[in-house]
Amino acid sequence: MTLPARAQEPGTTSTLHPGSDGAGVVRRTVLPGGLRVITETMPTVRSAAFGIWAGVGSRDEDPADAGASHYLEHSLFKGTTRRTAMEISAEVEAVGGDINAFTAKEYTCYHARVLDRDLPLAVDVISDMVTGALNRPEDVEAERGVILEEIHMQEDEPGDLVHDEFAAALFGDTPLGRPILGTEDSINALSRDRIHGYYRHHYVPPNLVVSAAGNLDHDEVVALTERAFAAVLHGDARPAAPRIGGETVPLGPRTRVIGRDTEQAHLVLGGPGLRRTDERRFALGVLSAVLGGGMSSRLFQEIRERRGLAYSVYSYTSQYADTGLFGVYAGCQPEKADEVLAICREEVARVAGHGLTGEELARGKGQLRGGTVLGMEDTESRMNRLGRSELVYDALLSVDEILARIDAVTLDDVRAVAADVLGGPQSLTVIGPFGEHDFDL
Amino acid sequence: MTLPARAQEPGTTSTLHPGSDGAGVVRRTVLPGGLRVITETMPTVRSAAFGIWAGVGSRDEDPADAGASHYLEHSLFKGTTRRTAMEISAEVEAVGGDINAFTAKEYTCYHARVLDRDLPLAVDVISDMVTGALNRPEDVEAERGVILEEIHMQEDEPGDLVHDEFAAALFGDTPLGRPILGTEDSINALSRDRIHGYYRHHYVPPNLVVSAAGNLDHDEVVALTERAFAAVLHGDARPAAPRIGGETVPLGPRTRVIGRDTEQAHLVLGGPGLRRTDERRFALGVLSAVLGGGMSSRLFQEIRERRGLAYSVYSYTSQYADTGLFGVYAGCQPEKADEVLAICREEVARVAGHGLTGEELARGKGQLRGGTVLGMEDTESRMNRLGRSELVYDALLSVDEILARIDAVTLDDVRAVAADVLGGPQSLTVIGPFGEHDFDL
Repeated sequence: MTLPARAQEPGTTSTLHPGSDGAGVVRRTVLPGGLRVITETMPTVRSAAFGIWAGVGSRDEDPADAGASHYLEHSLFKGTTRRTAMEISAEVEAVGGDINAFTAKEYTCYHARVLDRDLPLAVDVISDMVTGALNRPEDVEAERGVILEEIHMQEDEPGDLVHDEFAAALFGDTPLGRPILGTEDSINALSRDRIHGYYRHHYVPPNLVVSAAGNLDHDEVVALTERAFAAVLHGDARPAAPRIGGETVPLGPRTRVIGRDTEQAHLVLGGPGLRRTDERRFALGVLSAVLGGGMSSRLFQEIRERRGLAYSVYSYTSQYADTGLFGVYAGCQPEKADEVLAICREEVARVAGHGLTGEELARGKGQLRGGTVLGMEDTESRMNRLGRSELVYDALLSVDEILARIDAVTLDDVRAVAADVLGGPQSLTVIGPFGEHDFDL
Repeated sequence: MTLPARAQEPGTTSTLHPGSDGAGVVRRTVLPGGLRVITETMPTVRSAAFGIWAGVGSRDEDPADAGASHYLEHSLFKGTTRRTAMEISAEVEAVGGDINAFTAKEYTCYHARVLDRDLPLAVDVISDMVTGALNRPEDVEAERGVILEEIHMQEDEPGDLVHDEFAAALFGDTPLGRPILGTEDSINALSRDRIHGYYRHHYVPPNLVVSAAGNLDHDEVVALTERAFAAVLHGDARPAAPRIGGETVPLGPRTRVIGRDTEQAHLVLGGPGLRRTDERRFALGVLSAVLGGGMSSRLFQEIRERRGLAYSVYSYTSQYADTGLFGVYAGCQPEKADEVLAICREEVARVAGHGLTGEELARGKGQLRGGTVLGMEDTESRMNRLGRSELVYDALLSVDEILARIDAVTLDDVRAVAADVLGGPQSLTVIGPFGEHDFDL
């Protein structure tokens, strides 16, 4: 068992995983000031992925700040004490690299993927953004328009929007229930000073994680990071504890219909799921794979293969520190929505009442096992895993440990978690050409 | 220079590329009956990607067949003489693999990605689909609903749909101008016999290519393919010639407005581009990178970074056997559409008239070089490159050859291709809350 970062002495390096057939060496250094650097070696590739993670996301926002984490993420691309916006992107793109960022409910990540020889450049550019952003008033103002356009774009994609609306139905007017992008009103109300203050408050070394994976040398990444962060690497702060626990109380089951003149009805049926660290997550993963995780899943077979009622139908889970969600999505003709919904309800009730067959359990476990290994073949996936694990998990499982947990799932485990998660009344969110009460029971 | 497949003696294997630092060994075997097997070794990965490519796509369709290539692609998943639909997906998903397919205008591909030890399974399942599909009337009927739902889903994504509408504006009512999915009417009119006849006609060994990349042995892939295709590997047919040349005549510049109650205006401005084998494609690639290929591009900088008018703005090219297209996309507030369009027109005219600066040329070349190398790190990209090259190019360039062609691009090359491709009046397609004549000049 590995020490958590906050217990590791500043200035020291520990080996979290020694490397094996399917995984590289994972090492973590804690720098003075509480900044963590975590890397994984992949000596057979010619590239490297690099990211800086901030332990802040939309669930840290007050209603008055709604959308601030994501707005700030955009603002960091607008210029630093050393680089203009153009220089930030041009330097990485000139060597064929990609630079980008994303904001989630519980973290924010700035990342680049480059040829291995260009890793020093990627470290320098992204560290500069994270430590030296100016958030100039005129830039924050120009970016407001971009974010409003991002919101409008999502409004034009109902199959995407319905997931945000479902989370809102489940978690209500809480930080977890509000959209990551904010709303038109909240974005219009955010001032430059508020954005900049948010940056100064949250982007501090104990709350940041540097992660990298690829053809790299850990000590070199540490040295590059030390140089880039030199001004703030002092003091005896320890890394922040991972974001575990919390207190979101999901609302009771409810039906929410958003009337739109769309071609398809976009439905999500589901309810609260598991928190991220819940040991039952492996059993729920197997369950979700068999219920709606691929073309051989029950929902796909029944709704698409046998009846031809939908093109896209699947189940999914989201995990947060203190709760999660489980949803089933389908897009279908509006006049078939009742039929599709009835099948979804029936399949959900059937697994909740009876679990899976032995054959399904074996298939679901195989699907999860293989998907785990295949999903970690590129540098970006591994970099993502390191950064996210460090911020929001209590331990970084090795690939072998993950596979062992999947192998250990039993029919009883699945039956128990299915009854817990899917046994009660489900919430429903629909976008389509409907009236408010069209789906009342 | 490598022999084209049709000149290679059936029953022989040739080495197309001997392998180098950045690329594996590429070998091709031509089997009796004209079936090609082409593989690339990637000994440092633990997975393999496998695909079977048919040299048929929507541009081979009569108006009465519109959508048949894609409909058939769906139908092949519905069952064979040896497997039910459930067995096709379950066998691959049970080992954690992905199985899928896509239809383009000039080819169709069925593919899977699996752990290397499961490659024999992937070869067996996908070969079974391609050689043993039943296309049963009741299955074709059920799948009709799925395809109609796919069409409806695309109708709900205007930022996607606008590209189809732009191609229609450019190429008119020709096979290249019609949508790959077909239309509601054409799908409703297609009979099972027509679909099955299309299958029997086009899915013949000379018109198929087997491609694979990953931790594999070429001779083993050939042996597996021989076993799976045993019934049809006879006769002296040679592989079909690559699809080169043709006769599509793009329509003159035109403006097309599709009125929809969307949040954003979705615009595409552009015109005919280059055919796939045009040597100027490398210069056009550099031009497109600088004009709208990333965050440092002129369009991104001017429209998003400086003025905050759009979230998504980019340029793109498509290539076909005999022609191509060049387009600039932007999504913005409807009331800003005129302003955004004016900037796009101005930037297009500026590169058409003056080309790039030396600094931009260097950046564009670096972007293309690095992107080429980074884009070939996974098994699926390499498998795709092999299959597509074999069907629609006259030669498979090595990575080093591609990089050399990019390096050779000069300012004059870019200026010449910019004048040719972007120098004339441009076509415009808009989806948004507008009237038919809102964009008339």
